[in-house]
Amino acid sequence: QQRILVTGGAGFVGSHLVDALMQQGHIVYVLDNLFTGRRENIEHWVGHPNFEFFQQDVVHPFFVEVTRIYHLACPASPPHYQANPIKTIKCSTQGCMNMLGLAKRCNARLLFTSTSEIYGDPQIHPQPESYWGNVHTWGPRACYDEGKRVGETMCFSYRQQHKVQVRVSRIFNTYGPRMDPLDGRVVSNFIMQALRGEPLTIYGTGKQTRSFQYVSDLVRGLIALMEGDYDDPVNIGNPQERTVEEFARSVASMCGSAGGVVMRPRPTDDPMVRRPNVARAREVIGWQPKVSLEEGLVPTIEYFKGVLGRED
Amino acid sequence: QQRILVTGGAGFVGSHLVDALMQQGHIVYVLDNLFTGRRENIEHWVGHPNFEFFQQDVVHPFFVEVTRIYHLACPASPPHYQANPIKTIKCSTQGCMNMLGLAKRCNARLLFTSTSEIYGDPQIHPQPESYWGNVHTWGPRACYDEGKRVGETMCFSYRQQHKVQVRVSRIFNTYGPRMDPLDGRVVSNFIMQALRGEPLTIYGTGKQTRSFQYVSDLVRGLIALMEGDYDDPVNIGNPQERTVEEFARSVASMCGSAGGVVMRPRPTDDPMVRRPNVARAREVIGWQPKVSLEEGLVPTIEYFKGVLGRED
Ligand SMILES: NC(=O)c1ccc[n+]([C@@H]2O[C@H](COP(=O)([O-])OP(=O)(O)OC[C@H]3O[C@@H](n4cnc5c(N)ncnc54)[C@H](O)[C@@H]3O)[C@@H](O)[C@H]2O)c1
Ligand SMILES: NC(=O)c1ccc[n+]([C@@H]2O[C@H](COP(=O)([O-])OP(=O)(O)OC[C@H]3O[C@@H](n4cnc5c(N)ncnc54)[C@H](O)[C@@H]3O)[C@@H](O)[C@H]2O)c1
Ligand SMILES: O=c1ccn([C@@H]2O[C@H](COP(=O)(O)OP(=O)(O)O)[C@@H](O)[C@H]2O)c(=O)[nH]1
Ligand SMILES: O=c1ccn([C@@H]2O[C@H](COP(=O)(O)OP(=O)(O)O)[C@@H](O)[C@H]2O)c(=O)[nH]1
Ligand SMILES: O=c1ccn([C@@H]2O[C@H](COP(=O)(O)OP(=O)(O)O)[C@@H](O)[C@H]2O)c(=O)[nH]1
Ligand SMILES: O=c1ccn([C@@H]2O[C@H](COP(=O)(O)OP(=O)(O)O)[C@@H](O)[C@H]2O)c(=O)[nH]1
Repeated sequence: QQRILVTGGAGFVGSHLVDALMQQGHIVYVLDNLFTGRRENIEHWVGHPNFEFFQQDVVHPFFVEVTRIYHLACPASPPHYQANPIKTIKCSTQGCMNMLGLAKRCNARLLFTSTSEIYGDPQIHPQPESYWGNVHTWGPRACYDEGKRVGETMCFSYRQQHKVQVRVSRIFNTYGPRMDPLDGRVVSNFIMQALRGEPLTIYGTGKQTRSFQYVSDLVRGLIALMEGDYDDPVNIGNPQERTVEEFARSVASMCGSAGGVVMRPRPTDDPMVRRPNVARAREVIGWQPKVSLEEGLVPTIEYFKGVLGRED
Repeated sequence: QQRILVTGGAGFVGSHLVDALMQQGHIVYVLDNLFTGRRENIEHWVGHPNFEFFQQDVVHPFFVEVTRIYHLACPASPPHYQANPIKTIKCSTQGCMNMLGLAKRCNARLLFTSTSEIYGDPQIHPQPESYWGNVHTWGPRACYDEGKRVGETMCFSYRQQHKVQVRVSRIFNTYGPRMDPLDGRVVSNFIMQALRGEPLTIYGTGKQTRSFQYVSDLVRGLIALMEGDYDDPVNIGNPQERTVEEFARSVASMCGSAGGVVMRPRPTDDPMVRRPNVARAREVIGWQPKVSLEEGLVPTIEYFKGVLGRED
């Protein structure tokens, strides 16, 4: 039994991770300011003797006694992280520093959720961990991308200087139940639009690609990485690549939507392609994704139907 | 007359900038923790009614009333910034944030000294400002490179969100009197070695290139950028490119050294080439470098002779 802190544990990914860790019998603390997360994502654990929720911002120093830290706290969808870029950067810089200070003091192991965005608009495809990336330092995505990049730098500096045990996951686009229906990401937008019979909003030509991973695969990967011995960065994602256009067609057909599509302008610096090379994950933590896009969309669409049902 | 804060003002570049600003009749405050700078670099201004020195670390909040902030505080040579990577990152993240907070509160204009290092080991040559760079997020140089990158991101986030007036200079290798003879940079190493009749230590093959700018050109460029209207990033450097080997030959011959050279291992992630495209600086602030390498080395070598004289 470990004492585990999950920052951002009231969010989409974090709450699924909390479920898995609680089911394994660990003591789980959640630190979350509820900026993009929701209390209802963790409501079912409130009152459980192994569970505690701290509603606080990770930019403030935080003191608990733990053996593991999953550091997820950070707005993750482009509309959310761009709404207040300074806040996003403070979260990534001061927040990450605080969690590394905590890990150092407690001699705890820290897993940092970095992102495929550190590869930016990639010029190598698919992206292996050895790729250094192609990121604009001051475009609209920079507050997120550069914040995550320097977060990685901090982790490895604490590893080098203070022997802090770090794990760095570079997460590729992930979807599943509990996604915020209003977060503006392509999965939530398309499914909500399809279920409402509205046209799906394709940004740009729709020829850009993403590779979508179901959340249960990610959670399994994060825990395997945390508990394994490997401590250089590891991609966690599903290499099944789709154009946004193809993805729109899949969603429309699975939701039985006849609303069609509308084209919208392409956002600045929107990456043209993204697909993980997951050879390293397979090799060093024995992990690979299991859930295909078509399988994962079923429970996800069910979840969004529930959201719509409650709205009516 | 402006009220001007120069962080890192006791360092190599900062102290020359302070001289120029004092000579223009401004009120000048220096904030410096003397980590790599020296009090003697600004000693000649101490006691002057327009001058004040604050020995403090920029990671702590700092409150003065100013109209201009030149934010230079940061260790700059690879041995110095790699000696304590966490300290380097804290300086770049918390320090830059504090100075932007100060600029916001005072409605002051802030110039951030970014670096050619944000281009990393460049794949486009020479480097224009539009190039996004090729940087390793967790190599030995990352604490400096990624810290400066996110510093740029912060500047433009404050510009966007709070209308803070920012200027961002990307400075290429600069040399001149007051360089720290022990900072391990190629200019100081080679000149000290040549003057002592020791062999010059070439790292790697010596085929890697740098483009060296004399400090007076830089200071002129920084002031022009600060007082101009242009507020996207601007390269400030001298496009005269040399291989390290050629540079060693120039130094050896100008110092009359017969010590020869020795080869040492190439440091990890050492950029293979570096040369600024300065078209933008010419166009938007009417600046270009004036001092050739051969001209600039004369007073620089004189300075190092003085250092050696004092050592004996
Ligand atoms: N979902 C993806 O596709 C994806 C891809 C790459 C990386 N990631 C990373 O995974 C993590 C979780 O992402 P998600 O999709 O669950 O996003 P999310 O927005 O659902 O979750 C983030 C959580 O962090 C909390 N948070 C934000 N700022 C905070 C702060 N300053 N202090 C405390 N809590 C704060 C939010 O309230 C939320 O609960 C993030 O770090 C994200 O960058 C996610
Ligand atoms: N010299 C170059 O070739 C070059 C190239 C690119 C960028 N730059 C940038 O220009 C600036 C000045 O460089 P330099 O060559 O004069 O280096 P330097 O080391 O001589 O000067 C840096 C100054 O900052 C001070 N400092 C460092 N950390 C501090 C902290 N936490 N709080 C307060 N003061 C602190 C040091 O004491 C020193 O006086 C740096 O920001 C550097 O990154 C220099
Ligand atoms: O249990 C802890 C230990 C540290 N910190 C914070 O983590 C940061 C980095 O800690 P570190 O010990 O590296 O830095 P220092 O305090 O030495 O500057 C500091 O701002 C601390 O306030 C924290 O929030 N919780
Ligand atoms: O309603 C939408 C939302 C997003 N996108 C596109 O879908 C891709 C994935 O966007 P998302 O915001 O989900 O995440 P990203 O991977 O860009 O961070 C990007 O190319 C977006 O431009 C889209 O076409 N329509
Ligand atoms: O004159 C000032 C004003 C602000 N700050 C610091 O600058 C940082 C960023 O300031 P901002 O106002 O953006 O942030 P906030 O205080 O709103 O978090 C804060 O940590 C402040 O302590 C400073 O050092 N001097
Ligand atoms: O004694 C030395 C110091 C540096 N260098 C090389 O000179 C170049 C410039 O190094 P410096 O540390 O001055 O600055 P950088 O531009 O790498 O930040 C790099 O390729 C170094 O490997 C060298 O050959 N001998």
